[in-house]
Amino acid sequence: MIRLAVDVQSGDFGPDAVVRGVVEAYASSSEPFVACLCGDEAQISGVLDGLGGGFDRSNFIIEHCPDIINDDDRRTTVWKNKKRSSIVRCVSLQKEGAADASVSAGDTGILIGSALFILGRAEGVSRPVLAAFIPTPAGPVLIADVGANINCRAEHLAGFADLGCTYVSRLFGKRDVKAALLNIGTEPSKGPEVVRKAAAMLEGDARYAGFIEGSRVFAGDADVVVCDGFIGNVMLKTCESFYALTSEYLSDSPGTFEKLTRKIDALNPENYGAVPFLGINGTVLKAHGGSSVKSIKSAVLTAVKAVVNSAVGAGGDLSGP
Amino acid sequence: MIRLAVDVQSGDFGPDAVVRGVVEAYASSSEPFVACLCGDEAQISGVLDGLGGGFDRSNFIIEHCPDIINDDDRRTTVWKNKKRSSIVRCVSLQKEGAADASVSAGDTGILIGSALFILGRAEGVSRPVLAAFIPTPAGPVLIADVGANINCRAEHLAGFADLGCTYVSRLFGKRDVKAALLNIGTEPSKGPEVVRKAAAMLEGDARYAGFIEGSRVFAGDADVVVCDGFIGNVMLKTCESFYALTSEYLSDSPGTFEKLTRKIDALNPENYGAVPFLGINGTVLKAHGGSSVKSIKSAVLTAVKAVVNSAVGAGGDLSGP
Repeated sequence: MIRLAVDVQSGDFGPDAVVRGVVEAYASSSEPFVACLCGDEAQISGVLDGLGGGFDRSNFIIEHCPDIINDDDRRTTVWKNKKRSSIVRCVSLQKEGAADASVSAGDTGILIGSALFILGRAEGVSRPVLAAFIPTPAGPVLIADVGANINCRAEHLAGFADLGCTYVSRLFGKRDVKAALLNIGTEPSKGPEVVRKAAAMLEGDARYAGFIEGSRVFAGDADVVVCDGFIGNVMLKTCESFYALTSEYLSDSPGTFEKLTRKIDALNPENYGAVPFLGINGTVLKAHGGSSVKSIKSAVLTAVKAVVNSAVGAGGDLSGP
Repeated sequence: MIRLAVDVQSGDFGPDAVVRGVVEAYASSSEPFVACLCGDEAQISGVLDGLGGGFDRSNFIIEHCPDIINDDDRRTTVWKNKKRSSIVRCVSLQKEGAADASVSAGDTGILIGSALFILGRAEGVSRPVLAAFIPTPAGPVLIADVGANINCRAEHLAGFADLGCTYVSRLFGKRDVKAALLNIGTEPSKGPEVVRKAAAMLEGDARYAGFIEGSRVFAGDADVVVCDGFIGNVMLKTCESFYALTSEYLSDSPGTFEKLTRKIDALNPENYGAVPFLGINGTVLKAHGGSSVKSIKSAVLTAVKAVVNSAVGAGGDLSGP
């Protein structure tokens, strides 16, 4: 049975939204799982009691986490100073072998720091990558990195291509996965030196599809778009914000807007649920800080899928399933 | 009378689209102008003849430009080796005092190189900036830079803020223009060193509005969003591509799509027309390579507006009109 650790105390809507999201995911998952709910015992019990029956409560284990992370806590040391905080405890449960994956809507820096220090890097990985899917007519495209690494060197970008291709190929059981380097042109002479150097390192790799411009990201020319975390973060957030603007503009045409969202729904944080942190020894998914019940539900379902497909793994066969 | 130099030979649709665009702009402009059409004389005459009457042909002067730029021509030297090419001739007419502004849909590198070498930097400017407007519910937001400068230093970013604010304030006659630095968070400790250094340089400037995340760009929190040209280029092109995707998805709901485009039309290259190159001695506007008749028309109208408002100028009063 799959065991998931869920950080119930993080996220803008608190334990109520997170616990409900996990229970909804449980109800709709084709794969049964046990959820270890990390947070305040009394609050979690309260939410579970409020939900009444209709689900097997023995599959929801409460892990009481009394430590509270404050603004004063340093992100780089919180994983050892606040071991009984909900976010750190989630990741620790994986290290102890009590969980197969963890999901948190908490602070990105703290989550990836905890994952890095507690679980460690996978073999051969110099920089783990935070990756997020965006929707395209050709299917989801993975953007790597979206904020874990800034000021990347060429070898880091080349590594992101590798980690991204492995994840996409395993998660979807897809062969011939292609990665492209985000650039401001497609000619070899274009762009900053770091991107051109990464291209030279990836040359000869059958999965490498060359440079991709911003104008082709949504065209789905590549399965994985590789970039520095600063750029990926800005790109993802700008698109989310453009999506929100479009939603607002279409709000008086509800039928049309629903049709649109069904097609491009992955840009709605509610729907893409969670982004994986790739290249560490374990499956750690970061849910959006503003996660609603629906977002947590999809984050949990993504975690289940990732575990079932061993999508996040250390090294191994990178050429596909 | 305003005099515009227009590069008729560049752009994906050739002299036919460009000449038609200029004539349409002439017909709808409240400010009369003389257009100097730079390109192949026979082709331009042919297009003008084909348009029949209805406009004062004496306001359309043909400047024959026999030089053709090839892929072999180096971008950095083409301005002196191909002086009689349409793109270089446009900018030269400004230097000679025969034109107040120029518009070209040609290669960005060649255009900004020619502008830089022929017209020169404005006093006190170390890096001129290519800036583009995006639409927001609060009005247009200027992104600076969108591709002229990559690997920017902090002082370059601080300079972009200054150039951008001056342009917006003059073009729209707007006071209290604010510039923000694009970053992956709003806390002072967030982001790469270059961005934090630029923030320190802008601190104390009344026009500086702090960091802005990608998620707030379309919220219109700032009039000018400052970033490295690599990031600005990717952001702009990604949004264009997302816009195109939205258009495609809404194509079977024509009424709704038209309503949407009326609101967010600036992201459609057809409508935003041209982006200014700021910080040089002259008004040089880059139209989209894929410019249609409509795009050229709006590029020309933007050029007229920029000249009338002295929006692009050397130094001067930066505190508003």
